[in-house]
Amino acid sequence: MRNKIAEKMLEKKDMIFEIFEFSQKRIREVGEENVYDFSLGNPSVPSPDSVSETIHLLLDELKPLELHGYSPGKGIADMKNAVAMHLNQKMGAHYGPEHIFPTLGAAGALAHALRTAANPGEEIVTFAPCFSEYEPYTAGAGLKLTIVPADTEHFQIDFEAFDAVMNPNVAAVLVNSPNNPSGVVYSTETIMTLARKMREKETEYGHPIYLISDEPYRDIIFKGTDSPYIANYYDNTLTCYSYSKSLSLPGERIGYLAVSPECEDGEMIMAMCSQVSRMIGMNGAPSLMQRLIGRIEGQTADLSVYETNKNLLYDALTSYGYSCVEPGGTFYMFPRSPIPDSMKFCHDAMKEDLMLVPGDIFGCPGHFRIAYCVPTQKVKKALPVFRKMIECCQE
Amino acid sequence: MRNKIAEKMLEKKDMIFEIFEFSQKRIREVGEENVYDFSLGNPSVPSPDSVSETIHLLLDELKPLELHGYSPGKGIADMKNAVAMHLNQKMGAHYGPEHIFPTLGAAGALAHALRTAANPGEEIVTFAPCFSEYEPYTAGAGLKLTIVPADTEHFQIDFEAFDAVMNPNVAAVLVNSPNNPSGVVYSTETIMTLARKMREKETEYGHPIYLISDEPYRDIIFKGTDSPYIANYYDNTLTCYSYSKSLSLPGERIGYLAVSPECEDGEMIMAMCSQVSRMIGMNGAPSLMQRLIGRIEGQTADLSVYETNKNLLYDALTSYGYSCVEPGGTFYMFPRSPIPDSMKFCHDAMKEDLMLVPGDIFGCPGHFRIAYCVPTQKVKKALPVFRKMIECCQE
Repeated sequence: MRNKIAEKMLEKKDMIFEIFEFSQKRIREVGEENVYDFSLGNPSVPSPDSVSETIHLLLDELKPLELHGYSPGKGIADMKNAVAMHLNQKMGAHYGPEHIFPTLGAAGALAHALRTAANPGEEIVTFAPCFSEYEPYTAGAGLKLTIVPADTEHFQIDFEAFDAVMNPNVAAVLVNSPNNPSGVVYSTETIMTLARKMREKETEYGHPIYLISDEPYRDIIFKGTDSPYIANYYDNTLTCYSYSKSLSLPGERIGYLAVSPECEDGEMIMAMCSQVSRMIGMNGAPSLMQRLIGRIEGQTADLSVYETNKNLLYDALTSYGYSCVEPGGTFYMFPRSPIPDSMKFCHDAMKEDLMLVPGDIFGCPGHFRIAYCVPTQKVKKALPVFRKMIECCQE
Repeated sequence: MRNKIAEKMLEKKDMIFEIFEFSQKRIREVGEENVYDFSLGNPSVPSPDSVSETIHLLLDELKPLELHGYSPGKGIADMKNAVAMHLNQKMGAHYGPEHIFPTLGAAGALAHALRTAANPGEEIVTFAPCFSEYEPYTAGAGLKLTIVPADTEHFQIDFEAFDAVMNPNVAAVLVNSPNNPSGVVYSTETIMTLARKMREKETEYGHPIYLISDEPYRDIIFKGTDSPYIANYYDNTLTCYSYSKSLSLPGERIGYLAVSPECEDGEMIMAMCSQVSRMIGMNGAPSLMQRLIGRIEGQTADLSVYETNKNLLYDALTSYGYSCVEPGGTFYMFPRSPIPDSMKFCHDAMKEDLMLVPGDIFGCPGHFRIAYCVPTQKVKKALPVFRKMIECCQE
């Protein structure tokens, strides 16, 4: 019989997509130059040339059967080795290739992490504001998602609120730093406190609590930001990474799950990953992309435009009177809405052809998300509209 | 807490992989030329040149952001159009692009079909012999898999046995023709009978029963074989296809789900597919591969070697006294084991460096699978070993 869970999800409208659709309609009506679309987190800088060059090379050097053939269930050695070496050099970690499981982007990594670290009916704790897709990701694995209310002053962690939700049914804590939608990076102090509290709870409950660290924005960090590598602070960490943002390859679905060398049952978790792949029909990441990463791991697109845009927007918006926690990375910013009803604010902004996403869908109403992965010219042209929007509210 | 389902799956040894591992060990010991590995269904013919050529072209013609950017959740239009047009021309179907959902190979298509056509706790009926992965695929979706015993005389369908298992909890019937492991193609008569019986059951139970047709071997059909396009015979058909075999691209994970234009709730099923993708973290098929298919849909690798091998093996084996239903397609053959214990037979064959897979893991003991996707020379060299194996049993 038609699946009731998937059907029910259809009833919840995908607001980001609706805003994007409206934006497309407006572009047809008034021209691309007159629409300010800050709704989608789609990278705006091209992949580095090495992506094309390396794919050309791979096609010329390897025989088709080798290049496009079935890859081992645990991933292609070249990629596993390159990732481990890169993380060790850059983060001071000490992974071996046996700790790296190539996946279909960070979404694929999360699908594996959630299905190895937890059983249906168990609970995952995460923090507002949070990526709206965590709801379907956990629901799809039969898990309960508990969202800790936001620390709206700094967008770090409200530990009192965290303490209040923790209970023995919690199998894992899910963090996303640098954060979508706030752009904030958890400080070393935040991570150390979280790790200490989780270790205490592990002892109290008598079972491991895994830390699932979703890090697709890890390589977009702005100057002067304290950005600890989370797995270095907590043994039972499952790190989820994607090349979608760092290499501007979101369509190619390539990423990995890294299981900390010190993780309790880490070897078992890795072995279980191959079984999870069978259970969800996700049999391996695309082999051409695995080989690409094997050769260019560590390179990134020119990500500097995101910091340029952040500075421009942050300085202008705060000068207009917006209240905003300054982002330490990503290509998002999450100002407070000038009126308490952030849905209404974003709706009003649409009338000015300014596309923003209300914080309501990130578990944090009263704010709105700006995805400034757009050309800098577009940011500049949009500034008067942002000013008009807050001036209207102040009248 | 560590996931119990994935952990339990680890206990069941993956026999095909164990045989393959043993084969690799023997290759190191006695040389590749002295090992006859018929264990894995991994294509042995290279992709057509057009695969490399088209990828080179795409890299040169399209901007990186266009080529590697996020693709629409429902798939890239070029691929959807090309697939619909191809199926309409070749199969006399009348799909539109809105009926085609690009997926990560057939496994990804099945993951979507099982999660749209059924609810956890419901039942999927399939037929022995069947692909061993159907067990984890259905278990992963919380479904019960019922395997109808084989019609060992023809490897068509034993309809008495089918009637005996049908009940109102059955949400879908899953068929795989051309079949892994038997190589047999369901005849038009078989499909028409199945369709009639399913329609009767739909009326009796008062709900649709979907026909999930898993067709990764659809383009490997031998001369003179009756090979109906299944969706033409039953309205509520969800067709799962993969380019892994036809284009020899198993590592790239590209395929699709096609929902019959006449399917009850077909539009809803397609809409639900995007929701299922979110639930299992499988957000779209790789965009480069979708664009590749958009340009070369309808082409295949040179698949003729599989028929050459089939003829050689089938003629030789039957002349030695093996009993075997002649395959109509694929690169598999499923002879009766000369001794009732097919596990023992395959184990004895391993001692001769002949790697075969016992029918036990396909729900059909007393047989063994030969995967003859190997160079023809390898088949020829292995014939004396096959002869020796049956002669030993007859002594």
